Amino acid sequence: MIKSIAVDMDNVLADIENHLINWYEKEYGVTVDRSALLGVSEDEAFPDKTAARRFIHTPGFFRTVPLMPGALEAIKILMQSYEIYIVSAATEFPISLAEKHAWLAEYFPFISWKNMIFCGSKSVIKTDYMIDDHCKNLDHCLGKPILFHASHNVNIKHHFRVNDWQEVVAYFEKEKQSI
Amino acid sequence: MIKSIAVDMDNVLADIENHLINWYEKEYGVTVDRSALLGVSEDEAFPDKTAARRFIHTPGFFRTVPLMPGALEAIKILMQSYEIYIVSAATEFPISLAEKHAWLAEYFPFISWKNMIFCGSKSVIKTDYMIDDHCKNLDHCLGKPILFHASHNVNIKHHFRVNDWQEVVAYFEKEKQSI
Repeated sequence: MIKSIAVDMDNVLADIENHLINWYEKEYGVTVDRSALLGVSEDEAFPDKTAARRFIHTPGFFRTVPLMPGALEAIKILMQSYEIYIVSAATEFPISLAEKHAWLAEYFPFISWKNMIFCGSKSVIKTDYMIDDHCKNLDHCLGKPILFHASHNVNIKHHFRVNDWQEVVAYFEKEKQSI
Repeated sequence: MIKSIAVDMDNVLADIENHLINWYEKEYGVTVDRSALLGVSEDEAFPDKTAARRFIHTPGFFRTVPLMPGALEAIKILMQSYEIYIVSAATEFPISLAEKHAWLAEYFPFISWKNMIFCGSKSVIKTDYMIDDHCKNLDHCLGKPILFHASHNVNIKHHFRVNDWQEVVAYFEKEKQSI
């Protein structure tokens, strides 16, 4: 049976870090270096600690986030051998729901609505693998957890880590051979 | 460990049949008797076969659907002993996403965003039970399927059926005792 992969959106398919840095620069006129985000939450990473949270609650934020480099090509390759589900913890941010749906339709028009999941807790998502940047989603996930590198998670040591989409593809190439 | 129940929205928490009949009456001036919905899809049930599909794509439709009788009281009772996840196949109708979220916030404000799932296929939802009115969701569900009575599903014989929310509560009372 074809194996399934749950793929997160924020910081995995969508480059939230870059987007936050750009929005911050636009509003505050201050360019925050990506290194400032290392090992801290996105709330804490910017001089104004209220900015990131305000941005993610602003209409248009999720709709305009740039694609993570390599994500499109990688998803196309993975879909040849795996069932891909996009699983995003979106219900915390109601205005993000339609925006995330529209964003997926723009960048991944070949992904069916049947394979989209906008949820809160991911603990009842049963896929064979889960690619995510957050321990809160991976620690209790029902499949094999794969930590996608993000600045905030650099100090996490207890999950298998992939640094970019090229590493994801390489990992699943090996997995395929071992099945 | 506390057992989990996936609860569908349309025709389970939300009285879609009544809502369709009311919208049809308002637009066409024709009152369709509920018996016309027996054993057929909602598309086929109305004299104008395009109406139901158009309604469910109309902004405001899902936001204004009435609560299913007994649902509120039953969910409150079930939450005392079970983990409840609201699982709605909403990604087919992007405008329904925010409306369903707002509808839940109105009628079930005590249900956390963590326990909401708006998805397409429900085949990767791993709860111990799933209450739904559609075979497409129950036939391959990972938990114990429970068919919630709806006019369109009256001829379905291969799932355990509950006719209303009182029967759901009674069923889970018994299940609790057998654990």
